[in-house]
Amino acid sequence: MKTQIKVKEGDKALFNNHADFCIGTGRMGLALQEEYQKQLAYVQDIIGFKYIRGHGLFSDDMAIYQRRKGFDGVEHIEYNFTYLDRVMDNYLKLNIRPFLELGFMPEKMASGDQTVFYWKGNTTPPSDYEEWAKLVKTTLSHLIERYGIEEVKKWPIEVWNEPNLPGFWKGADMQEYFKLYRCTALAVKEVSCELKVGGPAICGVDDERWMREFLRFVQSLNVPLDFVTRHHYTSCQLQIDGHYSYIDLHKPSEAFAVLEKSREIVDSFSEFKGMDIHITEFNTSYVPNAPIHDTNLNAAYVAHMLSKLGDKHASYSYWTFGDVFEEMGVAYTPFSGGFGLVANGIIPKPTFWTFAFFKELKGEAVFKSENAVIVKTEDGSYKGCAWNPDFYCEGNELNINVSLPCTEGQNYSLLIKTVDEECCNPLKVWHDLGEVATPKEELNKLLRDAAKPQITTKLLQGKDSVAFDLLLTKNAIKYFELKAVTIKSDRGYSYERTMAQHVEL
Amino acid sequence: MKTQIKVKEGDKALFNNHADFCIGTGRMGLALQEEYQKQLAYVQDIIGFKYIRGHGLFSDDMAIYQRRKGFDGVEHIEYNFTYLDRVMDNYLKLNIRPFLELGFMPEKMASGDQTVFYWKGNTTPPSDYEEWAKLVKTTLSHLIERYGIEEVKKWPIEVWNEPNLPGFWKGADMQEYFKLYRCTALAVKEVSCELKVGGPAICGVDDERWMREFLRFVQSLNVPLDFVTRHHYTSCQLQIDGHYSYIDLHKPSEAFAVLEKSREIVDSFSEFKGMDIHITEFNTSYVPNAPIHDTNLNAAYVAHMLSKLGDKHASYSYWTFGDVFEEMGVAYTPFSGGFGLVANGIIPKPTFWTFAFFKELKGEAVFKSENAVIVKTEDGSYKGCAWNPDFYCEGNELNINVSLPCTEGQNYSLLIKTVDEECCNPLKVWHDLGEVATPKEELNKLLRDAAKPQITTKLLQGKDSVAFDLLLTKNAIKYFELKAVTIKSDRGYSYERTMAQHVEL
Amino acid sequence: MKTQIKVKEGDKALFNNHADFCIGTGRMGLALQEEYQKQLAYVQDIIGFKYIRGHGLFSDDMAIYQRRKGFDGVEHIEYNFTYLDRVMDNYLKLNIRPFLELGFMPEKMASGDQTVFYWKGNTTPPSDYEEWAKLVKTTLSHLIERYGIEEVKKWPIEVWNEPNLPGFWKGADMQEYFKLYRCTALAVKEVSCELKVGGPAICGVDDERWMREFLRFVQSLNVPLDFVTRHHYTSCQLQIDGHYSYIDLHKPSEAFAVLEKSREIVDSFSEFKGMDIHITEFNTSYVPNAPIHDTNLNAAYVAHMLSKLGDKHASYSYWTFGDVFEEMGVAYTPFSGGFGLVANGIIPKPTFWTFAFFKELKGEAVFKSENAVIVKTEDGSYKGCAWNPDFYCEGNELNINVSLPCTEGQNYSLLIKTVDEECCNPLKVWHDLGEVATPKEELNKLLRDAAKPQITTKLLQGKDSVAFDLLLTKNAIKYFELKAVTIKSDRGYSYERTMAQHVEL
Amino acid sequence: MKTQIKVKEGDKALFNNHADFCIGTGRMGLALQEEYQKQLAYVQDIIGFKYIRGHGLFSDDMAIYQRRKGFDGVEHIEYNFTYLDRVMDNYLKLNIRPFLELGFMPEKMASGDQTVFYWKGNTTPPSDYEEWAKLVKTTLSHLIERYGIEEVKKWPIEVWNEPNLPGFWKGADMQEYFKLYRCTALAVKEVSCELKVGGPAICGVDDERWMREFLRFVQSLNVPLDFVTRHHYTSCQLQIDGHYSYIDLHKPSEAFAVLEKSREIVDSFSEFKGMDIHITEFNTSYVPNAPIHDTNLNAAYVAHMLSKLGDKHASYSYWTFGDVFEEMGVAYTPFSGGFGLVANGIIPKPTFWTFAFFKELKGEAVFKSENAVIVKTEDGSYKGCAWNPDFYCEGNELNINVSLPCTEGQNYSLLIKTVDEECCNPLKVWHDLGEVATPKEELNKLLRDAAKPQITTKLLQGKDSVAFDLLLTKNAIKYFELKAVTIKSDRGYSYERTMAQHVEL
Repeated sequence: MKTQIKVKEGDKALFNNHADFCIGTGRMGLALQEEYQKQLAYVQDIIGFKYIRGHGLFSDDMAIYQRRKGFDGVEHIEYNFTYLDRVMDNYLKLNIRPFLELGFMPEKMASGDQTVFYWKGNTTPPSDYEEWAKLVKTTLSHLIERYGIEEVKKWPIEVWNEPNLPGFWKGADMQEYFKLYRCTALAVKEVSCELKVGGPAICGVDDERWMREFLRFVQSLNVPLDFVTRHHYTSCQLQIDGHYSYIDLHKPSEAFAVLEKSREIVDSFSEFKGMDIHITEFNTSYVPNAPIHDTNLNAAYVAHMLSKLGDKHASYSYWTFGDVFEEMGVAYTPFSGGFGLVANGIIPKPTFWTFAFFKELKGEAVFKSENAVIVKTEDGSYKGCAWNPDFYCEGNELNINVSLPCTEGQNYSLLIKTVDEECCNPLKVWHDLGEVATPKEELNKLLRDAAKPQITTKLLQGKDSVAFDLLLTKNAIKYFELKAVTIKSDRGYSYERTMAQHVEL
Repeated sequence: MKTQIKVKEGDKALFNNHADFCIGTGRMGLALQEEYQKQLAYVQDIIGFKYIRGHGLFSDDMAIYQRRKGFDGVEHIEYNFTYLDRVMDNYLKLNIRPFLELGFMPEKMASGDQTVFYWKGNTTPPSDYEEWAKLVKTTLSHLIERYGIEEVKKWPIEVWNEPNLPGFWKGADMQEYFKLYRCTALAVKEVSCELKVGGPAICGVDDERWMREFLRFVQSLNVPLDFVTRHHYTSCQLQIDGHYSYIDLHKPSEAFAVLEKSREIVDSFSEFKGMDIHITEFNTSYVPNAPIHDTNLNAAYVAHMLSKLGDKHASYSYWTFGDVFEEMGVAYTPFSGGFGLVANGIIPKPTFWTFAFFKELKGEAVFKSENAVIVKTEDGSYKGCAWNPDFYCEGNELNINVSLPCTEGQNYSLLIKTVDEECCNPLKVWHDLGEVATPKEELNKLLRDAAKPQITTKLLQGKDSVAFDLLLTKNAIKYFELKAVTIKSDRGYSYERTMAQHVEL
Repeated sequence: MKTQIKVKEGDKALFNNHADFCIGTGRMGLALQEEYQKQLAYVQDIIGFKYIRGHGLFSDDMAIYQRRKGFDGVEHIEYNFTYLDRVMDNYLKLNIRPFLELGFMPEKMASGDQTVFYWKGNTTPPSDYEEWAKLVKTTLSHLIERYGIEEVKKWPIEVWNEPNLPGFWKGADMQEYFKLYRCTALAVKEVSCELKVGGPAICGVDDERWMREFLRFVQSLNVPLDFVTRHHYTSCQLQIDGHYSYIDLHKPSEAFAVLEKSREIVDSFSEFKGMDIHITEFNTSYVPNAPIHDTNLNAAYVAHMLSKLGDKHASYSYWTFGDVFEEMGVAYTPFSGGFGLVANGIIPKPTFWTFAFFKELKGEAVFKSENAVIVKTEDGSYKGCAWNPDFYCEGNELNINVSLPCTEGQNYSLLIKTVDEECCNPLKVWHDLGEVATPKEELNKLLRDAAKPQITTKLLQGKDSVAFDLLLTKNAIKYFELKAVTIKSDRGYSYERTMAQHVEL
Repeated sequence: MKTQIKVKEGDKALFNNHADFCIGTGRMGLALQEEYQKQLAYVQDIIGFKYIRGHGLFSDDMAIYQRRKGFDGVEHIEYNFTYLDRVMDNYLKLNIRPFLELGFMPEKMASGDQTVFYWKGNTTPPSDYEEWAKLVKTTLSHLIERYGIEEVKKWPIEVWNEPNLPGFWKGADMQEYFKLYRCTALAVKEVSCELKVGGPAICGVDDERWMREFLRFVQSLNVPLDFVTRHHYTSCQLQIDGHYSYIDLHKPSEAFAVLEKSREIVDSFSEFKGMDIHITEFNTSYVPNAPIHDTNLNAAYVAHMLSKLGDKHASYSYWTFGDVFEEMGVAYTPFSGGFGLVANGIIPKPTFWTFAFFKELKGEAVFKSENAVIVKTEDGSYKGCAWNPDFYCEGNELNINVSLPCTEGQNYSLLIKTVDEECCNPLKVWHDLGEVATPKEELNKLLRDAAKPQITTKLLQGKDSVAFDLLLTKNAIKYFELKAVTIKSDRGYSYERTMAQHVEL
């Protein structure tokens, strides 16, 4: 399919780009692992997210809440911040701040034994809300003592995770969640009124009712609320085979309708109109064994999402940065459908590059469509992204002719980075080389080498506009930059002459 | 053009692969530089040469030979090994040993003031041959004291460089060189008879006469000679413009004729028949401002050379590993036609990959032609290289159908790495982005990313043979591996099903 | 107290030094952690142990044994080696091999729910011995497939841990252990007869009976046994206060008596006479909350042990290399009495240096006493260690005058490294600076700087002997080297004159 | 000797601390070397200077000024910034900015062939002042283009070096220097009036006349002048032996008198009163073969200087950070009396620690004497330094009792770092181990370990003051910190009880 983008001087488009605001992570205890740290360091080096959010701050492997009878016969309640401090130190060293999610329940404080995940996060209310409030306050106070209020006040605080699902909150008990929220929000503000707190962190099940009731509750009791949060997944029904879940994806328009409804509800409350909504999790599938996550289709589909999610939301946090993750157990292979942008072995998946490309799109948006977005930067150059997920032109090649305003006689450098099923598809390489369960470092290195965008460049000249083609194969995503350039060749240097040299025949 | 390679079980070919034996370097004093060390570390990490050879061991920037009148009025001759030790330590740390070239002349020991290069290597005989012998002996003895004779005896020692050129040896005085050679060889053996010494290190000017006379001289006086050395460059006449020299290349057959003559001459002496000949320098052009070095044509042409040079030579040392090099001054840009496999900024040039590919070709050769070589490795897999320099099919695309013996029903993984003008041509990217004279790190990073081979894979099955195409565009070089593989997919995992997932329409 | 060591030419002493053979570790799952890897890398860099041994290979956090009902309703037993491979890759990269301990029981295979430690290692027999044998065989076969039999056959295999304690093996059931041992040993040999297997891994409770019965059992049924293992701890009764256990230490002579009894028992069986006994764990206290581990007394006491343990044992593995360890929960501070040679924050404790010093003592022993050992190395120099644990001269200073044979007129360099309560006592620095629970990196750096041996040197000359003093304060340990040296001062250089320069008054 | 420091609440002292403002370096061409970069990285990691100043920006090894006849017969004047950019990139990466010294003369632009140093810096005026101005302008414009004016305007620019010495400026021709200064200053301001320029960079020979005449000249012609520069060395007459120069040092009071005279002269001009004077070089001896630089005496003497130099000067740049330096040739050993804070092999000399200690002394000065300075920091803690150069109490031990204000009942942590001839004297260790000319890495590591300050700590309590002793052996320097601390021991932890554990007798 052929199509055209024609940008004229002065064109504007709506595009709020928060692609690099926040990213998801496996449970906090996994942040102690070396492979986790390496993957996160890689992500930060190339993308550089500002915040990171995940579960398990208060789960027992973080070892914060301690309650044991001593040899003296007395029961001691104590707080151990050894691991928390280690994790936070590492985050800050990598220039990423926590978006704190308060949960799950320490076993010794839990009112029941219901757990979620292979790693058994307890999802029951506290047996004693005062104890919970004390845990929250002690932890936040400790963090402020260690890092200073100027730092910690930048860390948003979210209360629990997906209480509208019975697996994550016993019975999906709405009133109990409101109790938890109120108790927690007041505890947070007691520590410092500069701290920001929000909820209800729901996902898309009975979400409209939850959102409305939550806001009513907060409003009626005047409970602190600084921002609203929800999740967003776009897969259809899972089809399970062995360790894996295959899915198809919802049509984007349907997926977005759900989110828009949340925005409407929030805005329908005069006190909350325009309040920040953070999508604290999103992805295509919501399970960590969905091979779709490893594909180029995922990358192209997510590009489409990134182009639109900022229209009405303050942020949207892709779930997750890496594949050190144990919700459904330990992965058997590096390409086992984990959520991560990076596969184990520090191999970037195609969707990694979607984020790497979008984080460059800073400036004034001049064009946006269903399959492309273009911005103009401060120095006058253009940066853009185009994508061709299989639904867009039904799996066919898409050839976009892009035309941008230019100065006559000026040279322009065009840089294109391509991620598609042919040139940047480590999943295919891994498959073709035998689907090795735990590749040795040598094979990992090859997979990494096979997981980089292809780079091409061109020198262009135009009259009042400069034009070029972006050829997108199925599920491709392309990034481009167009910059004015003046070539001052060194004395005697000629690229054309260089290329004309040959072997005498 | 279409062609075919058909290998049958039991096929054999002549292919002595010494591609990773030795590599050239800018003068030894430059080995103190950080950029030099980084480039060499990169080369060693990916290619891993065994030896390194360059000029300038005794030149004054190495500061070995010191002769100064002290405040006491007495003239002191001293040897300073501070820099030499630093350089040798670094070489050994990078797992590379020196192939020692003894030269040039320290200014204070020189008989004249003739120099070569921008960096002014003195190319006159010693004013006192005893002083020279003492310098050689003291230096070698010091190295043995520091590194042990077991180590140093592995370092071949070559006497001077290209004495058949008047620029490199005053007057190209043959008798004077013989005097130097004899004095030096005896000094070397005096230090230890386990040390190996050779010459005459000539290049292709009046080379037949020099080779013959040198061997006669050595023979007649029974001078120690452990190996023979010469150089090999294959460019036609230079065409100079500003800082640059443009060249065309000799037809390979003509180029090889010169070398074969040397082999014949050596073999014509019964004492020297079959003696190792080390080509201690080779490249296409012999000047460090020849843009040809930066091209894909160079890579493809050198691939052809590497396939043949081992037929009659013990080694052949590409001149040079990197572009920290000052023979014609300091380069104005990173792509200024330097000899290096790696451009400044640690950017691998296409020819870098020719070596990276050839060093993998260890095993038993089963096929060799003018544009391809294939080996079978110990584990039964095949590795090969094919190239298409512009002369081969006159600049057209070459499509080689390769057929290799296989086991019926067995799956095979095919891995292909491609370096061509489209996909691995940092010179073009640098040009298209404006020929920036000194790129900042960000641009260097982009250039490095654009300088990596493209990796593709396929799963194949055959009956008695397995076949695949290698499509080589002009000046392309391709590396491939074919390995038997058994795919044990994890329970429930299906690559086909993964790729069939889609967006609902 | 003053004392003297006088070594004469030709003196010999018994000293089998296996100090760097093996080291203990927290459970294998902790090897995934970054802090663990950093501590181990530090240990390997300076000491370089050959083997590492710890618990938990088959515990559930390693995720090897998987048994779950799938969505297909069928129960699947599977083996997941993702984490095991990651851990083994890391060990080998750090040049350390596993001394495999087979245990504890995967929950899904366990016959009961008894667990040990905060991290809940299941210590009950398998519910099905065939399943266990299959787990052992599948795991070992996988390791051989990945690393090769040449490598894996170097990894000793020990069956379970401390079965003579009811906490570690349900009921301390001897017959059940023999059953486990036999089943396991046969499984190991079925995989490869080149693999080495041993037991009974007992500690010092009812140990004589266990050792005797075990050997009888093995003998009577002709069960494979390649080596014998046991543990060794030397603390008196614990006195507990809060999180900590205070102890005093046994007199060394009593401690050694226990071990000698084991040797006697083994040697009393003609088939086992002289068989290797590996002490697969030893330390002063046997709990990870014993502040004694962090002290200089511990370092001096362990030095004494290291001087003697090799007399009758093939190895002795200090328990443990580092403080990433959770047997009694997560430590609240970096100096909480963990077993580690290295405290969290990568701070070497005094005992770290005991090992660093002993691993240098390679050569021929020429002297050994209760507080010193001296070896002569191949190049003729002397290396030695001396220690002054508080029991030796009742907490007083010990001044040893050492006299060694020498060549008249020769200069000798004496190098001394000192670790004592004044100069290398990070525990004191941490205490004096406020006992900070989780030091930030800046404080950790200071603690590391305060945890290095003091280095002093002297130039000596002797007649037929050269003598020097080693002044050992309470709990000090000193390492020394004495080497013949010839000072060739650079022309004009005078150290004495340098030191005589002054400020004009 | 015993003495006392008693600080009372509210005490103030004069102490302008610019110890970390600027540091000297060997010629800029040496900044390409790897050892140089490693030494500088070490210095920056621990001290972190803001600026770096050295010679040779325009010397030929930097290759900036190029003038050659091409093959076309035309002479080309060109500027090559390949090396300059590499050096500046590296500086900025290490967080250090250049304090630019414009000099020496490119050979092709020189009016004569007089050179200075082993490395032959040409010290004659330009043959054409317009050519010189163009070189200055082109270079500065290039730097601004590359790094931006916001960055480059922070780089002070100094015109030439020590023109009052005939070796550094032909004939020490004052009028010629004024001509150069004027031409250069105008060129600098033509590039940007935001750039800052200064001179006359004189050393202590005929310096009063030079300073006065220079200011008169600048004043009379209204030549731009933003700051004044001079040098400061304090050694008495050299006594030369072989490669080395032995010196004694001037009494500090005499040394400072010279500087005060400069300040007076500057202040005597109404236009220049209070103008910044940068001491762009200082050290004890002015030659790089003075063993004094490697001593503890040097460290203690420099500490005294650092305490006073800020009284009247905007900065004072120690000459130099490291020992990659070739003014008198290549050093024969790592301790050959080079200027560097760091010896080759990356070994910090005692004087390194003087700077490391002084850079901590930020805050409000509360005490300064001839042998100590104390500041109070924002958080209420005290930091101080004390020194005992041999002149202070004639080589005897000095025991200072320090008393500081405190809060009754509060605990205080005292941290002391000691550098003296016993505990931090790598020169002695190097000597005692045989004065090895080029140590291998293993020995370098030992020397580095022997070159670290000894760290001791104490817990103190006071009433209205807290007191402690600083015992300074001859040439010692001590750094201390006193901080209020509250020890919250973990439950059950007792340091006293820990230390009381013992071996049963």
